[in-house]
Formats: sequence, structure tokens, C-alpha cells
Amino acid sequence: MPFELVDHSYGKSRVRLVKLTRHSESHDLTELTVGIKLDGDFGAAYTTANNKNVVATDTMKNIVYVQARQRPVEPIESFARAIAEFLLAEYSQTSAAEIEILQHGWTRLDPYAFQRAGEERRVARVTATRQSVAVASGIENLVLLKTTKSAFEGYVHDRYTILNEASDRIFATAIQATWRYSRPDVDFNACWQECRRVMIETFAAHDSKSVQQTLYAMGTAALKAQPVISEIRLSLPNRHCLPVDLTPFGLENKNDIFVPVDEPHGLIEGTIVVRPE
Amino acid sequence: MPFELVDHSYGKSRVRLVKLTRHSESHDLTELTVGIKLDGDFGAAYTTANNKNVVATDTMKNIVYVQARQRPVEPIESFARAIAEFLLAEYSQTSAAEIEILQHGWTRLDPYAFQRAGEERRVARVTATRQSVAVASGIENLVLLKTTKSAFEGYVHDRYTILNEASDRIFATAIQATWRYSRPDVDFNACWQECRRVMIETFAAHDSKSVQQTLYAMGTAALKAQPVISEIRLSLPNRHCLPVDLTPFGLENKNDIFVPVDEPHGLIEGTIVVRPE
Amino acid sequence: MPFELVDHSYGKSRVRLVKLTRHSESHDLTELTVGIKLDGDFGAAYTTANNKNVVATDTMKNIVYVQARQRPVEPIESFARAIAEFLLAEYSQTSAAEIEILQHGWTRLDPYAFQRAGEERRVARVTATRQSVAVASGIENLVLLKTTKSAFEGYVHDRYTILNEASDRIFATAIQATWRYSRPDVDFNACWQECRRVMIETFAAHDSKSVQQTLYAMGTAALKAQPVISEIRLSLPNRHCLPVDLTPFGLENKNDIFVPVDEPHGLIEGTIVVRPE
Amino acid sequence: MPFELVDHSYGKSRVRLVKLTRHSESHDLTELTVGIKLDGDFGAAYTTANNKNVVATDTMKNIVYVQARQRPVEPIESFARAIAEFLLAEYSQTSAAEIEILQHGWTRLDPYAFQRAGEERRVARVTATRQSVAVASGIENLVLLKTTKSAFEGYVHDRYTILNEASDRIFATAIQATWRYSRPDVDFNACWQECRRVMIETFAAHDSKSVQQTLYAMGTAALKAQPVISEIRLSLPNRHCLPVDLTPFGLENKNDIFVPVDEPHGLIEGTIVVRPE
Repeated sequence: MPFELVDHSYGKSRVRLVKLTRHSESHDLTELTVGIKLDGDFGAAYTTANNKNVVATDTMKNIVYVQARQRPVEPIESFARAIAEFLLAEYSQTSAAEIEILQHGWTRLDPYAFQRAGEERRVARVTATRQSVAVASGIENLVLLKTTKSAFEGYVHDRYTILNEASDRIFATAIQATWRYSRPDVDFNACWQECRRVMIETFAAHDSKSVQQTLYAMGTAALKAQPVISEIRLSLPNRHCLPVDLTPFGLENKNDIFVPVDEPHGLIEGTIVVRPE
Repeated sequence: MPFELVDHSYGKSRVRLVKLTRHSESHDLTELTVGIKLDGDFGAAYTTANNKNVVATDTMKNIVYVQARQRPVEPIESFARAIAEFLLAEYSQTSAAEIEILQHGWTRLDPYAFQRAGEERRVARVTATRQSVAVASGIENLVLLKTTKSAFEGYVHDRYTILNEASDRIFATAIQATWRYSRPDVDFNACWQECRRVMIETFAAHDSKSVQQTLYAMGTAALKAQPVISEIRLSLPNRHCLPVDLTPFGLENKNDIFVPVDEPHGLIEGTIVVRPE
Repeated sequence: MPFELVDHSYGKSRVRLVKLTRHSESHDLTELTVGIKLDGDFGAAYTTANNKNVVATDTMKNIVYVQARQRPVEPIESFARAIAEFLLAEYSQTSAAEIEILQHGWTRLDPYAFQRAGEERRVARVTATRQSVAVASGIENLVLLKTTKSAFEGYVHDRYTILNEASDRIFATAIQATWRYSRPDVDFNACWQECRRVMIETFAAHDSKSVQQTLYAMGTAALKAQPVISEIRLSLPNRHCLPVDLTPFGLENKNDIFVPVDEPHGLIEGTIVVRPE
Repeated sequence: MPFELVDHSYGKSRVRLVKLTRHSESHDLTELTVGIKLDGDFGAAYTTANNKNVVATDTMKNIVYVQARQRPVEPIESFARAIAEFLLAEYSQTSAAEIEILQHGWTRLDPYAFQRAGEERRVARVTATRQSVAVASGIENLVLLKTTKSAFEGYVHDRYTILNEASDRIFATAIQATWRYSRPDVDFNACWQECRRVMIETFAAHDSKSVQQTLYAMGTAALKAQPVISEIRLSLPNRHCLPVDLTPFGLENKNDIFVPVDEPHGLIEGTIVVRPE
């Protein structure tokens, strides 16, 4: 049988890095996890055991540290792009480089001390070829909860439906968002901060009729606030907080005692774009 | 600004299920985690807070349990397909249903007792529309290690390369494989077992010049063994076992003392198809 | 052979709970994970299959929710004590009840919305018998990092030592602290906040000669700040940030590029008490 | 206020190690995670910043690798003891060394290839002083499930009890066991294998009236099988598999469709000793 390797890529995952920037009166701290993937003329390694085009993944890791020494690592979108372009320039057998960077948050305590800011992460994903560069920014694991202005009513009721309609439920989620830009010269830090701010604000203020509706409101709010964003994708798990049934114990649950459950959970996803007028 | 919801789906994740099949002299046990995603006419929930087409994700969960009661849950490919087709038949607003099932392994100890078989999982993914059904099978987290017949030599050496060439290294990985079928009437259990068997056998026997080459050998071995498979995708992390430098302590490491590290790791991927002759 | 059941206990772990307190203009939110363990006259269940004294662990879970409905769940020390005393009063076969409560942090965004505050947790542990109640408070996973005023020098150098002395290293840790009180009538919230505050402040300000010395400084600072605390135990992992060797690439690491590693890590522990003068 | 450091220890956690033993026709593979803790005259590091007695935890790590090079690493009880005694001999300021070793299982595929055997781990814990050595062996995360001969009836029924009595339920658990020896010259491998075997056999065969009773049966079976064991401690979570209520859908659950839940779970513990006759 004739076989064909129709798709292949390889790289290094989970390259961890802390960079310290020493100012005269304070330090800045950046913690990143970098992932690299290369496409290109590497098929011979798979099919004929010829490694001559193969850049060792250990070498890729070294390049991350060398680049981190030689240039700023923030904004992470620019650092990711620099790594991608360096790899393309250095290795002619590479046709595309995909760089993903996760930034872990630290809250400043004093000029030289920091506290971990939680498990929310800022994300940059850059895919560069010799012809183009695509930059995406995002957020992972932004965990939000609201205790009012969340309902879920008017959905399909059939023989498999036992869920009670809720006019006032807890809405808890862990937001994953990714957005793309319509042009390359973006103030990534300002855009990311503003995009995150309006999504949080919208989540809190929104009179939610469903997770779907809130997702759409958050996405359009981000697109409105930052016209440089052309597309946003949101993924919102519905981390159910179920009211505990206290009637067997002669008590009424006044919609105040809940069990949060991790599984199963709803998962609501959507992608919104700006249409040219 | 005019916005458009260009893509949306929603569903239920991590629906856990144990089904017991009671034979006269023994029991069979199946443990699954099911995920459901629906595409269709659900946009109004996002854009106009109209939930009338929305099937609650809790209802989807109930359907999984009802289906599990009413039909066999194995092979998981068939169970996934049954759930997908049921959802399409029941809810006309649905255009596509995507079902993912993970099967957790249990090793039989006696007719009624079992031991957890590890963290390897069998996977089925079915995407059904009113016109078509696509079935994929796979394996997650099949952790293998070999202590000889693994080399990595002849790769690019440049100013960023410090990795030593290795003629005899440890090769450890956690295989993720997914394959598709060229026709629907497949003995999924037999095919999955055989596909897994030849991949393990190839991993062990292969005189590896790189992870890439072993990936290709494993993939083509599966395609050869099971002609009903038309395409296979493999993802192999390279879980490095690094030799410990004992020279500072006046000792030679005779290639026998290693540190296994989880991060960073290489990640090698490839997709192989059978070409019509 | 004669066997003896010399020690036994049982209970319910990971009872999750969210309680909402609805004020006229805002809501308060508390998320807890509760664990219960009972000691007492339960040996017959082990040795003679007699369950008549056994309180089902499901019943214990129900009691947590009933108590949460009927009384405040904060401070968690008081809630833990209330559960313990309720169990002792209700079930005469119980000789001791041990309650552990983890509180998960939420940062307020507006009167009705919250953001997850990270993976730090406040802990209460109460062990009550018919004669006594012991209350302990604590912190888990308070992740701190400082970029200066941390050295490690003057330690043992022998044939197994290759670690370089460091006059200015990164010091990163995830603090676990537990403390006990010298009397029962404590303002637990104020004490916890203050104890946490002085430990963070000491960590940041301390001119550290070792993790050991900083641990002692943090512990004594807490004891000084809160005389009601009679004993504090601290456990500080040393989450190493290792300088990357860039010399193979013709670069100098100006003590600014590091790899954070999770394993292996140092682990420094100590318990400090106040001695009566 | 006068403070006293009443207890302190420090060491290195999660030292990972793979050792290969090269026979002429096959290789043996051992994967371990080692933890070290030292007690002794280290208080000055805490209280007066005097590091002269401090052995760097990096040095401890090196000693593990040196010892692994110079002697067998199996049985892990003997390797742990060797490390402990080496540390006591080398560092006179040490009064006690506590070594914990986890062994990760690999199943042989051929003379040079292996498959990960799951997340069960063998454990050894050695605490050595200049006067004594205490050796404990154990098992972590041995996940077992039985589908019959498990009941739970006759327990306390009161106003907080809603759990239904079960004459035939699923019993799933993840065994944690630790045992001590009455004398030092033990064939640790044979003893561990036999102890594990009889506990699994007892779990499967036992006509269980409660988790408590099965725990006691497993523990006494191990003590009977291996008289060299003087004490065994077992900790058995009750990983509930809850029957799904299908009556709202017009179906009967014939005790065959279950939801496995991770939280909350019961936790049953007990320690059994052999009493001198």
C-alpha cells in the first residue's frame, strides 16, 4: 500500500522562563511558558530516517532563552512573533512557525516582591510563514461568578427534560477567549487589558437570559471597545451551582445553599466577527 | 458596528457513566465519560435571548443515561453514533451532533471484581449530520518506554545546539492516536485492539533513528494491519530521560542513571493516509 | 493470631458548599470544602459487621448543608466547631469529631459579581471531644516570590556539593501555615488577616540568608503580631528558579533569565512556640 | 516574647530517577521518586542565620544519584535505608533521616520495552536515627471495584438520613496501605507482592457489609499471610457509584446505570496490629 505523510509538525512544549528586569528602584518580573511548533521540509525524518533538516527541540528551547536575553519578553505577542521570525530566518527548511506563550500573573507586593495572581493566564498565539503573520491574543481560566441577573427559562421542555426553569440562579464560569487583529501595529498590552476589562464588566452587568446571550454580549462588547479586533471566540463552561434540596430535613432552601459541581458541566461556545458596513 | 455570530455550538461535557451488564455467572463493567456538542439553529439564544430552540444541557445528560439503559454502550463508536442520531432525530433544530466518548479501562480480577487498568483511554468521536456520519477511534495516554534501539543523530548543529548526539538513548512517550475509517461497517473492538497491538509492537521492535521515524512506522503499521483505516494521526511527546552527570562526583554514568523530566518536552506529530493505487 | 483494631475513624471528604447571603444592596458569597472525621464506638462495624452505631457519611454531608442553612458559615473556625459539637451532641457513640474546612477566595467585582482570587485557601481545623475543643487556623498555597534580598551561602561544601553560593537569588515559595490559639474567644477573621499580612510583609522585607531563616522570621512575626497564637507551624517549599547557562551561546546571563522548576524542590519546615516568661 | 523553635526539619522532595540495569539479553527498568528529610542540629540556620551545618538540598539530590549509581535501587526499602544511613554517617549534625520512595510501575512488553502500569505506586518509608531504623512499606492508589457482594444496611436512621439501604451496591475504592515489620531482615519484594495479592483477593471475595468490614478483612488477611508484618494501616475512600434515577423518563434502573462521583466521598480508615498471644 502506498502511504503519504499528509501533515506533520514538531516542536518543543512547556519551555518555562522567568525574566527579571532590574530597574534602579524596582524589579519587573515576567513568567512565561512557551510552546514552539515548526512546519516545513522535515518529512524525510519521518519517512527515510534522514535527520539532516531536523532542528533538535532542545535547540529550539535554547533559542527561547537566547531571545529572552536579547530582547523584551513583553508584550508576549511581540516576543512570540520575534521567536517565530527568528526561526524562519535561521532555518530555511521551515515554512511556518507557530508560537504559543502563556503568561502567568504576579501581583506586586513591593518593588521586589510579588504574589501569584491566580490561575488566569494571558495567551498569545503567533503563526508566521514567509508571507504572513497572524497574531491572536487571549485569556484562559478567568473564573467569574455572579449571584443575580442570571436566568434560564423558555427552553425546550420534552420527555427528557427535568431541569427546573430558573429566574435567578448563580452563574459561574471560567472564560476562555481568543481574538484576532485586523492590523499588525497594535498596542497589545492596552488592548488586552481593555478587552478583559469590558468582558468582566459586561459579565457582571448583563441581565443574562442564558450563558449564550452573555457570551454574545461579552464578545460584542470587546469588539466595540477595541475596533482593532476583527474576531473573537469565547468558550464558557457553565459551572453549575445546584441548590441543595433541604425539604427532607424540614427546611426551605431560600436559594442560598448550593453545591458547586465540576462535572458534568455545560459548555457554550461562539465566534463573533465584525462585518464590513 | 454590525456583528455576526459566525460559529456557535454548545453541549454537555464530562457526563460520567458506569454500566453494569449482569450475566448469570459474571458481570461486565463499562466506565465512560461522554461529551456532547450540538450545532444548529441556536443563534437566537445568543443574539436575541430567545431560548425556544435551546435543549438544556441537563436534558442532553439525561438522554445519555436513557440511551445507556436502552442499548449497549459498547463498542463506544456505536454508542456515540446512536446518541448523535437520536439527538438529530429528536431535535429538528440540530444540524450536527458531535459526540466524544472516553472509555476508562478496568482489568478483570474475577467474575465480579476489577482493577483500574491505568490512565490509558480508548476514544471515539462521532460527528453526524443529516447527510453523513464520520466515525473516528483513538487512544489517549498510552505510555511506552524502550531502553535500546533509539538514536538521534545527524540533526542540525549550529550555534544554538548543545544537545549531544545519542546512539542509544531511552525513548519514552505517551501516545495519542486517532484514526478514521473508509467505510462504516467496522468491527470497532477488533480493529481498535489490533491497531493498538501493532503500534505497541512496532514501537518496541523499531530501530528508531528519531521519534519522527518511529511515529511514521507505527502509523503505517496500523494502516497495513487494518485496511479499513484510511487515515491515522499520531502525536508523540518525547518525555526526555536525561543522563545524570556524575563526573563531579568522580563517577562515570554508564548510561544507566537518568532523570525523567515532564517539562519541557518535545512534541512530534504527523498524519498518514493511504493513497489509492 | 489475635488481631486488634487499635485505631479507626471514618467520615466524609470534599463536601462542597456555596452559601449566598442576600443583603438589600449586595450579596456575600462563601465557598467551602468541608471534611469530617469521627472517632468513637464504631469498631463493631469493622470487626463484627454490626452497623448499628454507624452514621452514614451521606448523613454527615446532609448535616453540613443543614448547618449551613441554619447558621453563619463564617468565620470557618466557628462553623467547623459548630459542626463538630453538633455531631458530638447528636451521636453519643462519637468520642471525637475532626472538621477541616477550606475556604476558596473570591474577590468582589460589584455588589453581585465576583472573580476567583487564586488557589490560596484559608483553612480551619477543629478537633472536638466531650472534654475539649482544639481550633487551628491556617493558609495553604500562598505563592510568593522575591527578586532580591535572598542569599544562600556558608553551607556545607563537600564532595557531593556542586551548588554555587548565591548572594542574590530568586526566592519563590508556596506557604503552608497552621497556627493554634492559647484561648478560645478569638476574632478569627481579624487574626487570620493580620497573621497573613505580617507573614507576607516579613517575607518581602526580610534580608534572607536561607529559607530556614525567613521561615523563622515569618513565624515569629505572626506570633508577635497576634499574642493569642501560641504556636505556628510553617512549611516552605523552595521552588527553585535556576539561572540559565547562556555561555555556550556567547552570552552572559546577567542574573535575569531563569527556569522555574517544580521538581525537585527543597522543603523547609519548622514549628515555633511562645514560651511563658 | 521568648520564642522557641520546637521542631524543624528540611530536605529535598520529588527527586526523580530512572535506573536501567543492563543484562546481556534484557534490561530491567526502575522508576522512583525520592524524598529526603533531615532532623538534627540545624536550628542555627533558622534562628541565627548560621548555615555552617546546613547540607544543601541540592547536595542531598546528588547523593541520591550517586547512591543509585553505586548500589541496587531495589527493593526500595533497602535503597531508602542505604540513603538514610549514608546521610547519618556523612553528616554528624544529622540526628534522623526520613526517606520516602515511590516506585512507579512498568509492565514488560519485551526484553527492552515497557508499558506504564497505571497510577498505583509502591511506597517505602524509612526513618533512621543513630540508634534505630524503622521500615514501612505500602501501596498508594490501588484502584479496585466490585459489582456484587457489597451491602450497606442497618446503620443509623434519623432525621438527617436519606440514604437508602443497599443490599447490592457497587464498591469502588483506591486503596492506601502502609505496614510495619516486626524484624529487619525481610524479603521486601516477596512480602510486598504477597501482601498486595491477599488484599486484592480479600477485596474481591469478601461478602462486604460495609467498607469498614472489608478494610478489617483485608488488613487481617495481610497480617495472617505475612507474620513478619506487625501492623497495617488502611485508608479506603468510598468512591460512590450512584444509581441514576430513570423514573422521570418512564424507565426502571435495574441497578445497572450509575454515575461515578469523585466528590464528596466517604473515607474509612483503620489500623490493625497483631497482639502477642
